[in-house]
Amino acid sequence: MVDILHRVGIKETSPGEVYKALTTIEGLSGWWAENTTGETAVGGVIEFRFVAGGFDMKVIELKPGERVLWEVVDGPAEWIGTLVDWQLKHDGDYTIILFKHEGWKEPIEFMHHCSTKWAVFLMSLKSLVETGKGDPDPRDTKIDNWN
Amino acid sequence: MVDILHRVGIKETSPGEVYKALTTIEGLSGWWAENTTGETAVGGVIEFRFVAGGFDMKVIELKPGERVLWEVVDGPAEWIGTLVDWQLKHDGDYTIILFKHEGWKEPIEFMHHCSTKWAVFLMSLKSLVETGKGDPDPRDTKIDNWN
Repeated sequence: MVDILHRVGIKETSPGEVYKALTTIEGLSGWWAENTTGETAVGGVIEFRFVAGGFDMKVIELKPGERVLWEVVDGPAEWIGTLVDWQLKHDGDYTIILFKHEGWKEPIEFMHHCSTKWAVFLMSLKSLVETGKGDPDPRDTKIDNWN
Repeated sequence: MVDILHRVGIKETSPGEVYKALTTIEGLSGWWAENTTGETAVGGVIEFRFVAGGFDMKVIELKPGERVLWEVVDGPAEWIGTLVDWQLKHDGDYTIILFKHEGWKEPIEFMHHCSTKWAVFLMSLKSLVETGKGDPDPRDTKIDNWN
């Protein structure tokens, strides 16, 4: 088992904005995929649709201001059954996200790609909360020939 | 053992530019740390100095256009003894970098930070080669309260 790990720090202009950006359709479509639909409550499934494909995430846990946990229930074969774990905490002026995409079976080339792409989308989330404007698909930052 | 993995694809304006950006002081100081000195041949040590600290990398292997391998010989305790592995290949118009920073003992919070920060610096390297301008320290993109 190998994991993708990331850490970003975000200055919220009002409390709870990071959590909101992870738990509402409006927030998620502002930094990850503009075409996002579905149910964001625990047990619901959120459908993210990108130019290159899509993911369906089942919401496993929501702890306001502290944690969001998703399980991938549809999407690329390598993603199905993996977990996307968002842990939030405060440090001075910052809301810190400790991000983990865990449960990859092998460190394949696609995992390298997804690791870099998650970082770019986390910077999009940071930008959305700090400036009001993120860079979700289809106007996301391209990192390689796969996207 | 846990690794940081990334993948970027870069369009070179002339062949060999990515390899040059990884193996010359001029290249390295254009995307990672402006304050870079040392010996870039196999067996040499390159000293990268950032606002927040520094790393000394011993050059273990150089395979022109294919691979660059460094061992961290000085820097933060968690980095010492780890390997930074750059594998290059071509795919259509792109030079693909498969990046691995391997040998971390534990998936500590600092590793989460370094994973995201490597992605940002890889995008700086892509920008340097594609546009002539990277974002090395001290004008690097900040990701959190640590840098």
